[in-house]
Amino acid sequence: MRTNKEKENVYPVLLGGQFRQANYRETFQAYNPATGELLPETYPVSEWPDLEYALEESHRLRLELASCPPERIAAFFDLYADLLEKNKEAIVRQANLETALPLEPRLNSSEFPRMISQFRQAAEAVRERSWKQAIIDTKLNIRSIYGPLGGVVVVFSPNNFPLAFNSVAGSDLISALTCGNPVICKAHPGHPGTTRLMSELLLEALKKSGLPLSAVQMLYHFKNEDGLKLVSHPYVAAVAFTGSKKSGLALKEAAEKAGKLFYGEMSSINPVFFLPDILKEKARSLAAELFTSCSLGAGQFCTKPGLVVILNDEAGENFLRELTAIFSSQPAGILLSPAVLENLKTAANNLKEAGAKLLAGGQPLPPPGFRFQPTLFSVPAAKFLEKPGLFQTEAFGTLTLVVLAETREEMLLVAQNLEGSLTCSVYSSLSEADEKFYWQIEPWLRLKCGRLLNDKMPTGVAVTSAMHHGGPFPATGHPGFTSVGIPTAFLRFAARHCYDNVREDRLPEELRTKNPNGRMWRLIDGNWTQGDF
Amino acid sequence: MRTNKEKENVYPVLLGGQFRQANYRETFQAYNPATGELLPETYPVSEWPDLEYALEESHRLRLELASCPPERIAAFFDLYADLLEKNKEAIVRQANLETALPLEPRLNSSEFPRMISQFRQAAEAVRERSWKQAIIDTKLNIRSIYGPLGGVVVVFSPNNFPLAFNSVAGSDLISALTCGNPVICKAHPGHPGTTRLMSELLLEALKKSGLPLSAVQMLYHFKNEDGLKLVSHPYVAAVAFTGSKKSGLALKEAAEKAGKLFYGEMSSINPVFFLPDILKEKARSLAAELFTSCSLGAGQFCTKPGLVVILNDEAGENFLRELTAIFSSQPAGILLSPAVLENLKTAANNLKEAGAKLLAGGQPLPPPGFRFQPTLFSVPAAKFLEKPGLFQTEAFGTLTLVVLAETREEMLLVAQNLEGSLTCSVYSSLSEADEKFYWQIEPWLRLKCGRLLNDKMPTGVAVTSAMHHGGPFPATGHPGFTSVGIPTAFLRFAARHCYDNVREDRLPEELRTKNPNGRMWRLIDGNWTQGDF
Repeated sequence: MRTNKEKENVYPVLLGGQFRQANYRETFQAYNPATGELLPETYPVSEWPDLEYALEESHRLRLELASCPPERIAAFFDLYADLLEKNKEAIVRQANLETALPLEPRLNSSEFPRMISQFRQAAEAVRERSWKQAIIDTKLNIRSIYGPLGGVVVVFSPNNFPLAFNSVAGSDLISALTCGNPVICKAHPGHPGTTRLMSELLLEALKKSGLPLSAVQMLYHFKNEDGLKLVSHPYVAAVAFTGSKKSGLALKEAAEKAGKLFYGEMSSINPVFFLPDILKEKARSLAAELFTSCSLGAGQFCTKPGLVVILNDEAGENFLRELTAIFSSQPAGILLSPAVLENLKTAANNLKEAGAKLLAGGQPLPPPGFRFQPTLFSVPAAKFLEKPGLFQTEAFGTLTLVVLAETREEMLLVAQNLEGSLTCSVYSSLSEADEKFYWQIEPWLRLKCGRLLNDKMPTGVAVTSAMHHGGPFPATGHPGFTSVGIPTAFLRFAARHCYDNVREDRLPEELRTKNPNGRMWRLIDGNWTQGDF
Repeated sequence: MRTNKEKENVYPVLLGGQFRQANYRETFQAYNPATGELLPETYPVSEWPDLEYALEESHRLRLELASCPPERIAAFFDLYADLLEKNKEAIVRQANLETALPLEPRLNSSEFPRMISQFRQAAEAVRERSWKQAIIDTKLNIRSIYGPLGGVVVVFSPNNFPLAFNSVAGSDLISALTCGNPVICKAHPGHPGTTRLMSELLLEALKKSGLPLSAVQMLYHFKNEDGLKLVSHPYVAAVAFTGSKKSGLALKEAAEKAGKLFYGEMSSINPVFFLPDILKEKARSLAAELFTSCSLGAGQFCTKPGLVVILNDEAGENFLRELTAIFSSQPAGILLSPAVLENLKTAANNLKEAGAKLLAGGQPLPPPGFRFQPTLFSVPAAKFLEKPGLFQTEAFGTLTLVVLAETREEMLLVAQNLEGSLTCSVYSSLSEADEKFYWQIEPWLRLKCGRLLNDKMPTGVAVTSAMHHGGPFPATGHPGFTSVGIPTAFLRFAARHCYDNVREDRLPEELRTKNPNGRMWRLIDGNWTQGDF
């Protein structure tokens, strides 16, 4: 399955429908996070000519992709998923090597099946076509539908999901292609080998499906300034980014200034509120549940609970004792990279300096591997409220900050001073005890997040059309769009196309009198129907 | 109905639920465009403290508005529409005085009824609730719905629709309020008196409806730098702007850099393609149809055809002759302001200097009033293609540029070099003659515009959910959203709110088992239904 290494043993990039030697001056290697050592494979940092080549290729076929039959896109998703499944063992092994994420259950039984499920769901949604939200006014003969942007979509991979959020296999790729846009993928430098294996299968699937071979191109890495130049290039229509706030904001500014759409998932602290009475009922099991969520993927989830808010009463003290005991007794997970480790050290130091109290952990562990103790901080609500921004700095790793409120009013003040997050969770008593307080706090939390949870940790993100994985700035750039959930995630890369007085035989199939497949839902004169008209 | 004038005879602004004296150093007066003279009424240019006051007030009640029952918002729309209808004569007279737009049919029979219709349609949509697009996954107990942004929406009025696009009575206000957001309106300095009359009714309707009185506030004017400060203020969530590209881009950059949503309608050239055979069939009537569209509202429509593309054959020459005759013989309309007149002069000069040939008009008319001759230019396609950007500069006024292509290939090249527009129109023979060429040109036009028309001028924009009044950059900032069309226009100011495992009695009514009104469409487990589950 391997491509032959090019001279100098630097892996080629996927450009114009083939793996070609990159135009590069610098190279990089990924780490084995479990040993802390560099892996032997060498990958190129592409210079601008590679990016330009990719742009020209993508641009050239934008019309072909825009008019591509849905069946061909669906076939590509299925063929690609088939190939991924056939090569599961090699892919998962490589991902484990490059990320140290556990084979079981994470890679084998959770992330890989999720990646496959996304392709299968997408293939079905593409065939069914309801995602296009056809709206038809038969009286005025005006009809609208979602269609392609007519430009390139650039997708940036995050470090923390080498499979299901990989730029060459995740929801961004699926969504951009479904809408009929060519895609340029940037791998994450933490797992280039995983990306390489999947890209090879992607090219095979492109060939089998009959899609244009340059529909998806992939570069391993490029310089930051070339990234800014890329996202603001005239051929680009939209950008999908999942990663750090700093990089995200720089790309966002460059892209939007040039009139491009930017969808970024940039930072989220995911507050969890335990209302007073639930802690009286089951402090111990909730402490365990919280730790499990905080330490999932070694705390490297976008939805990791990074802030916990409780009342500093007897039940609260008891809960904090339980939590401290768990954080103190559990082993450290392995972090993805030296950068994540450094960032976590900085975060812990910043919290200390800002006056948070260290209750457990707080130190990196000696080699081998990038490890940091499970770390628990607490801070009085009054102190949190002095510098709410500082105490809400996201840090990957098993680290969380418990805010201790002296009164319910203080808890409410904390809620009011939250920044935008992907999620907010509220645990409360099943009795009536917490109900009144729930209704005081809920309206604030509702406006601070995309997904509000009851009695549940935020780390599971189900792939369903009812899911919303997004949230108010700075969690993302637009709180109306989700990056997870099919077909809802598609809409980020769609333009609205209206047809006014257009002759019946010139309309897209989906807007004609006859329903194109008897299954597509359409809004005809105010009524949703799967029928003709 | 008039508010008493404050001292110095400067009209007060609408802040915090009452008309108060503005904090101002400078004042302004509107023109009577028909005479070219200033009208006597004096309006304030607010200093920052007015903007800050408005922000504080709006911010204070964001939670109250976010949880406001739909019935109350619908009642406000109906009450406001009732009051507007009762005061139609005064409003329309004032609008005519300040804009010189004709009473008949424009203001009385077209724009006023359209404004009222928008409120009535909105009231119905708000009561029906389908716009919230509830998606429910009953198996996973995950549910999502559109809800408020949790911040202020700032609305900027354009100059060209004093009624139906006025910031205090148009689709932006309706949409922002429907989603539960407080609104700060900036009047257009061209028609402050019209805005004043409507704002007084707005306040009365707010009082009668029981909405918080600061839900909508209005300032007449402020400095550009204060506008930039306003749209990037922490309390602001989104901005709606309709106006010039220059102002729009400056506001867009400031807003987006601060993480705010920006919806701008900034510029559109609205190309009209006459395919070769249709011109052989009916050159004369098409020339008349084109002139009517170009001169509607004295050419001051966002959807005015500013570019016409034809084949330079015998039929094309004939068409151009007809068109020249009409442009040369028709009277000049009155322009909205000296600024529009200046801009039009500049546009005509730029076209001349760039090498376009003047076929009719081209000169301003002497006083009284702001008038410019109906103006027709032509340019060979080859020359257009040398500087396509320059030849696509939008200018309000009865001015259009005919691009003369020597071949069909050149027509296609022009299509390929278009910028994003709100609309593209194609006229073609009803016989098969133009069909093949239609299919060559359509894919390019489709990606360049929001609304594609057949055999129809773009200047009518019907208010229906199937309408799309938006388009690719630089026509607007996001091609997925429309500023006209109910309820589709609402979604610009909505965040997606997901409820994960939230207890039934804590869910918004729209997401509970029982359908809230038996009429709301909801997507339950993949099927649209008005039923319970």
